[in-house]
Amino acid sequence: MTSLNIAKDFLFPFNKDRGMEFISEIWGRSPLFICVIATTETAKIPGISAAGKNPELTDYTPAADVELLIYKECKCIKGLPVTPEGIPTPAIITMSALELADIPFIVVDAGTKIKPNTPYVTVGGEPGENIRLGRAVKNPEEIFRRSCILGSNLAKLVDYIVIGESIPGGTTTALGLLIAMGIDAEGKVSSSMPNNPHSLKERVVMEGLTAAGYRKGDLKQDPLTAVSVVGDPMMIAFAGLVAGAGKNIPVIMAGGTQMAAVLAILKFMKPDILDNVIIGTTRWIIEDESSDLVGLVSQIEKIPIIAANLNFSSSRYSGLKAYERGVVKEGVGAGGITISAISKLKGKINCKNIVSKIEENYKNLLAKIPIS
Amino acid sequence: MTSLNIAKDFLFPFNKDRGMEFISEIWGRSPLFICVIATTETAKIPGISAAGKNPELTDYTPAADVELLIYKECKCIKGLPVTPEGIPTPAIITMSALELADIPFIVVDAGTKIKPNTPYVTVGGEPGENIRLGRAVKNPEEIFRRSCILGSNLAKLVDYIVIGESIPGGTTTALGLLIAMGIDAEGKVSSSMPNNPHSLKERVVMEGLTAAGYRKGDLKQDPLTAVSVVGDPMMIAFAGLVAGAGKNIPVIMAGGTQMAAVLAILKFMKPDILDNVIIGTTRWIIEDESSDLVGLVSQIEKIPIIAANLNFSSSRYSGLKAYERGVVKEGVGAGGITISAISKLKGKINCKNIVSKIEENYKNLLAKIPIS
Repeated sequence: MTSLNIAKDFLFPFNKDRGMEFISEIWGRSPLFICVIATTETAKIPGISAAGKNPELTDYTPAADVELLIYKECKCIKGLPVTPEGIPTPAIITMSALELADIPFIVVDAGTKIKPNTPYVTVGGEPGENIRLGRAVKNPEEIFRRSCILGSNLAKLVDYIVIGESIPGGTTTALGLLIAMGIDAEGKVSSSMPNNPHSLKERVVMEGLTAAGYRKGDLKQDPLTAVSVVGDPMMIAFAGLVAGAGKNIPVIMAGGTQMAAVLAILKFMKPDILDNVIIGTTRWIIEDESSDLVGLVSQIEKIPIIAANLNFSSSRYSGLKAYERGVVKEGVGAGGITISAISKLKGKINCKNIVSKIEENYKNLLAKIPIS
Repeated sequence: MTSLNIAKDFLFPFNKDRGMEFISEIWGRSPLFICVIATTETAKIPGISAAGKNPELTDYTPAADVELLIYKECKCIKGLPVTPEGIPTPAIITMSALELADIPFIVVDAGTKIKPNTPYVTVGGEPGENIRLGRAVKNPEEIFRRSCILGSNLAKLVDYIVIGESIPGGTTTALGLLIAMGIDAEGKVSSSMPNNPHSLKERVVMEGLTAAGYRKGDLKQDPLTAVSVVGDPMMIAFAGLVAGAGKNIPVIMAGGTQMAAVLAILKFMKPDILDNVIIGTTRWIIEDESSDLVGLVSQIEKIPIIAANLNFSSSRYSGLKAYERGVVKEGVGAGGITISAISKLKGKINCKNIVSKIEENYKNLLAKIPIS
């Protein structure tokens, strides 16, 4: 492991010692990437999600994201998933890192309204409901159990696993889970929007909790009920996969503040595997002043956070440059898979090479499909 | 590789030299087992299938088979899938071999009416129709394409792949595909029944072909249409998986005469990978006088056939002993996974050990769930 590269490419904002050790454990090893997709009606509350050109289109974003990874183009929509301002999905980061390091991957459908035109694993979930209603996920226990079986089987095949997600509205449901479990999360979850709508998110969460007859922290000991009331199908499938795989191999939970919700579930459901787990994210999440991943994680379990030092400030494309203004920031495992790609190739590629590949892929996509 | 063990445990009824070589290639290597499940309405034609206590129950057999592999008991039915005479599913062989050699596995749903209570991969298929109607599978090309992507991704994870199947009525649809493609298959496909209903199967196939406006051999150059007219969703998903994985790693096609149909599809769709492929089956198939696997395969492509020398003649259980009378014979990849388990452990276990494990598992199952 060349510490020189690591210092440039990886940031260690939390629990650096164990983070460095983790990187040395996965250095040169072969990962599997799993992308967990789901939808939640919560994303359609106006002002909640920018993971789609408009709220109705958020149903298509998870399917389109994984289609992009497999086919290098989307099938269920024309063009790419973009924010209302036209900023492209972080799946273009993920596809570029997967490609450069030839990392195999599998799609897990935790409950989506629009199914991807790809092979995908079903774990018994259905699309999430609007958490305002106080009933979000029907069968979290069954989803957890099946995902756990899957994670445990996949763990026999590879050195370690990286898990990412795509679920529009996911930071609001993450806030729901965290508040239900009594974690001080207000003002701490991230957003794909330039202006993080914290108070709207909190209002939605509190409406849902109240509708179900709970107050903040009432579900401290009961993550499954918390998921069923104000969570989403992605987080419980994700937690099940980590629980199943983490017994035997290292796991990178690849994402932003939603990973705190997954961690809170795991802290209760499967705490013994957490020394085998880190959060892999992007610099944009770490530098985001409107959210606080470290502040969330430090309340739950002191697992390392490692951030990929991706930088689009010199990009030729305004769509990518916008990431530097704090739009999008993370998703589809972008940060974690970047860390994994660099580690797999033992630093033979770095963040700059990945950014070049992203620019190349984005250029090709723009040529094929005019993104308005 | 100890040739002593191999001579006892493996039979080489076809292309022995390449078969021996293949075994030496996989000796001590780590496989993934994939079980492809599907249903076809064809199984409900009275007298066609014994893979269920009665024709209606055949819808449950594939789901119950894979549940047995994962949970060591079925969830969607009480007891086990059995023939009308109460002879148990070959999944008990598969579960025992998987267990002894700790082989990871994945379920692929090519199109089932009853879904298993397990994680499973979807490849875009729907349950097969009755081939009598001359329209059996809606979208074979899409199923093939998605399965190919899956096979290609999974091939990056393991040394080699073993693929098995569970689809009641599958030998009739196999006959359909083979006849449509002009292969001399009459009287050559196997049956789970003690008396192989050859003439009924042929009548059903010819009815379907005629209904669709084809004669025998008309679809020699067109396996996709052959599948869509008189095939089933399993065979095309199976072929896609082999096509995707076989580019990079060895593949054991684990099954009986249905593997000839898969081979015929591959011979046209992806002939270049066939030197990386064998058929793994059971002694019961090879010794079956009412079918002719070698006679089918030799017409298509001379890939090796290797049979696991499983023997239930000394079993304490009449349900297992019945296999020696030619009931059931094969299914759920039983033969191929037995070969794979022995190879993975470099002959440290043999067919006898696997039979002991099967007896133990069967005993436990009988104790839990009285099989009437």
